[in-house]
Amino acid sequence: MKNFNKVSVTGTERVELHDKLNLTGAEISVNVLPAGAGVPFIHTHKQNEEIYIVLEGKGYMTLDDEKIEITANDYIRVSPATKRQISASYDTAIKYLCIQVKENSLENYTATDGVVLE
Amino acid sequence: MKNFNKVSVTGTERVELHDKLNLTGAEISVNVLPAGAGVPFIHTHKQNEEIYIVLEGKGYMTLDDEKIEITANDYIRVSPATKRQISASYDTAIKYLCIQVKENSLENYTATDGVVLE
Repeated sequence: MKNFNKVSVTGTERVELHDKLNLTGAEISVNVLPAGAGVPFIHTHKQNEEIYIVLEGKGYMTLDDEKIEITANDYIRVSPATKRQISASYDTAIKYLCIQVKENSLENYTATDGVVLE
Repeated sequence: MKNFNKVSVTGTERVELHDKLNLTGAEISVNVLPAGAGVPFIHTHKQNEEIYIVLEGKGYMTLDDEKIEITANDYIRVSPATKRQISASYDTAIKYLCIQVKENSLENYTATDGVVLE
């Protein structure tokens, strides 16, 4: 496999990056919901932790029995079994990333996984 | 562990989210380099695939023997052994996410890991 891949993602269509980038440790999707719209179902995961990153706009997430407001620059970890649903605000679109990773899969990171060369 | 965590990240200081969000499958850092600045070392990883996501601005990445331009909305996967270094442009700051995940750790995702409830 190539040592790296790069793609540019613009526009408002949902884009899934797993295959485009040859990802092996995550799936990342780029999502836009127009004002007043929401994902039309509640879901959970079997294995995967999700991290939602709000890039632009604002909206709401329902997480089990809580409904929270979310806005640009918010980062939200959601455990696999949590029932989740995300919506844009009534008057503002939301652009967000959704990252799926296998829960408890990270063994080392930064100082214990990185090797500084010079 | 709580079913979810949320933090807001603003400002220009590097922020590491692993402990703040109780992440177990990834480390995510939020980074800003001012115009003309770069990470002052080249590095590789032992186990982790990295995904760089350019949120704002532009800059450069050196990936082994290639130097590429990067700009807002670019998504870049880097394999563990790749020698990498990132810089802002000479006249423009860059804001980016760096996501570390264990290479080959993702087993299922989206349709094969998600469970739609209603």
